[in-house]
Amino acid sequence: MSSPTPTPATATAFKVKKSVALSGVPAGNTAICSVGHTGNDLHYRGYDIADLARDASYEEVAHLLIHERLPTRGELDRYRARLIALRGLPAAVCTILEQLPASTHPMNVLRTGCSALGALDPEPSAPGSAGPADVVKARWIADRLIACFPAVLLYWHHFATTGRRIAFETSEPTIAGHFLSLLHQRAPIPEHVRALDRSLILYAEHEFNASTFTARVIAGTGAGLYSCVTGAIGALRGPKHGGANEVAHEIQLRYTTPDEAEADIRARVARKEIVIGFGHPVYTIADPRNAIIKEIARELCHRGGRDDLFAICDRIERVMGELKNMFPNLDWYSAPAYDRMGVPTSMFTPLFVIARTAGWCAHVIEQRIDGKIIRPSANYTGPAERPYVPLAQRE
Amino acid sequence: MSSPTPTPATATAFKVKKSVALSGVPAGNTAICSVGHTGNDLHYRGYDIADLARDASYEEVAHLLIHERLPTRGELDRYRARLIALRGLPAAVCTILEQLPASTHPMNVLRTGCSALGALDPEPSAPGSAGPADVVKARWIADRLIACFPAVLLYWHHFATTGRRIAFETSEPTIAGHFLSLLHQRAPIPEHVRALDRSLILYAEHEFNASTFTARVIAGTGAGLYSCVTGAIGALRGPKHGGANEVAHEIQLRYTTPDEAEADIRARVARKEIVIGFGHPVYTIADPRNAIIKEIARELCHRGGRDDLFAICDRIERVMGELKNMFPNLDWYSAPAYDRMGVPTSMFTPLFVIARTAGWCAHVIEQRIDGKIIRPSANYTGPAERPYVPLAQRE
Repeated sequence: MSSPTPTPATATAFKVKKSVALSGVPAGNTAICSVGHTGNDLHYRGYDIADLARDASYEEVAHLLIHERLPTRGELDRYRARLIALRGLPAAVCTILEQLPASTHPMNVLRTGCSALGALDPEPSAPGSAGPADVVKARWIADRLIACFPAVLLYWHHFATTGRRIAFETSEPTIAGHFLSLLHQRAPIPEHVRALDRSLILYAEHEFNASTFTARVIAGTGAGLYSCVTGAIGALRGPKHGGANEVAHEIQLRYTTPDEAEADIRARVARKEIVIGFGHPVYTIADPRNAIIKEIARELCHRGGRDDLFAICDRIERVMGELKNMFPNLDWYSAPAYDRMGVPTSMFTPLFVIARTAGWCAHVIEQRIDGKIIRPSANYTGPAERPYVPLAQRE
Repeated sequence: MSSPTPTPATATAFKVKKSVALSGVPAGNTAICSVGHTGNDLHYRGYDIADLARDASYEEVAHLLIHERLPTRGELDRYRARLIALRGLPAAVCTILEQLPASTHPMNVLRTGCSALGALDPEPSAPGSAGPADVVKARWIADRLIACFPAVLLYWHHFATTGRRIAFETSEPTIAGHFLSLLHQRAPIPEHVRALDRSLILYAEHEFNASTFTARVIAGTGAGLYSCVTGAIGALRGPKHGGANEVAHEIQLRYTTPDEAEADIRARVARKEIVIGFGHPVYTIADPRNAIIKEIARELCHRGGRDDLFAICDRIERVMGELKNMFPNLDWYSAPAYDRMGVPTSMFTPLFVIARTAGWCAHVIEQRIDGKIIRPSANYTGPAERPYVPLAQRE
């Protein structure tokens, strides 16, 4: 099966229209998240993101999003045990993952793995079905997906690159530790675990962003949760959305010194190129997650002897503020943080998937209970009604 | 991997809210389709659906949608040859399909197959990338998907049910004939081929319906075409959308006589149950596709000695008109038509996928050229800002 010469995916800075369709138009109600009401705030079910990222664990936040409240100590213990029990993959999914070569983009691996998990786990999809049994099943699937996505990604990764079939079990109690343990096949550094844990909290939820909205549009038809998450992974893959953290890192890796970075970014901005990792369609003042991830990145770069990488990121931030009055979004400092944990660039967006699955699933459950199909209209800009010309008379 | 007791998917008539989010709100521009402007009209790029369904073939309509114009005789010949050359599947995709048991819903098979095809066929996904090379590649993928989806579905079907690995090649020049030939593993009846061909035309495109809108939301992030179609399949699976034709048929099969059907439907309507297959969020007077598919169904039922099935459908139509002033949509008479071609009920929505892929891909290409990300807002209905309670203090 040959294909025509594809254009290679060019990276870093692009000329794009910044326009946003439906911006500011409410597409539904949500009790899960409020974002940007004061220009720089983010709350999950009423809790400030700064508090959650400082004191909570990702599992507590997932429980808050999927199960609607912060767990008590006993609930959290049981929830962690439940998630640990859900880390494995059916043999058929392993065989499916083994068919995908090392050149496959990890996001396509997760998309295919999620779809396959759903193919093997029938769920009800009757219209308007959001009764108690449906919600129980949907929450089970949500927990399963956040628990087993590390295995989907890293079983494939090790098999595709070395032919080794890794075990799904690790002794790590958290999803962050489990991910790093599966990735590196050794006990992770505790500071890396907590840094990843905090970044997962920051990425867990963000109201009606494009991937979450995708999941809700799919949910609106009565389709099952696996279909919703599979679609959302596809949306998150786009470089204007989750793919931005990979592109941001390619920009950062282009430079060896802050001065070099500053000169080149000034030239690119002068050419009206967009620098990925800056600005946000919702926040007007700042991205409230930035201060948190920036300190995480600073600390990890310092400990890892890469103050130079942090300095490049920081300099570009200052230049973008000066030239364009733009602030970095969450992606900008997630990139050097993940880099210092030894996460390959192509796994940055998959980490975003693992985190955001909690938010996606919460929205899907909410949309199904809401019971609305999402069906906008379009402005027709095509040809007016025209007579049909039979084949024999066409020229 | 065990799962909690799922509710079985109940069928036929449901109590659902009929509400539609974003109804009447334009989410973008399109030159591909206009629908419902006079209450009962449908045009593909300015051509009346009645003309296309009477005189054109599905391949001509796919060319109109994907390649933007009706082909000349020479172009159509070359296009058919191109589609025939794209019918095969990579070996890795076959192995993946072989992992899915016979109990898998065929829509989950298509969703997984589409994602796997995309995993094995890298495509550019740079932001704003809708240059000539991108559009060429996107059209190639679109043609490939409409050409090979019959093989994805039916390779799996025969392997899962009999263990046989069927060949992808048939001597049928059309997608409709190819589908029926792969399904029945013999030369199809010409009347069935033309009837299926016409139904594919009717299903090919319908403006910003939920699955097409899903594809456009995904495309808005810069994600590739396989991601968009994978997501759209998930949305079409929902019983409020494409899944409705399967539910409609379950209703029809419930009765053995028109009188029995009438009595039961009257009782259900009195109980305020929704009868799937009637009404439409866009059309106010009638579904313009109904008259066409109704005659196709009448003819196939008559030839196949199943006038009784047609009579049941027709009686329910009359009762729904009398009681609820509701008209049948395309799904209502597609069901008996597909039934008479020997298509299993669970493949009704997959046929919708094959048809609609042409429309989805046209919209994805249009959205990528448009360059907008789709990001609505939400009405926040959750708790007001509340203080974070540390884990040790939670009760």
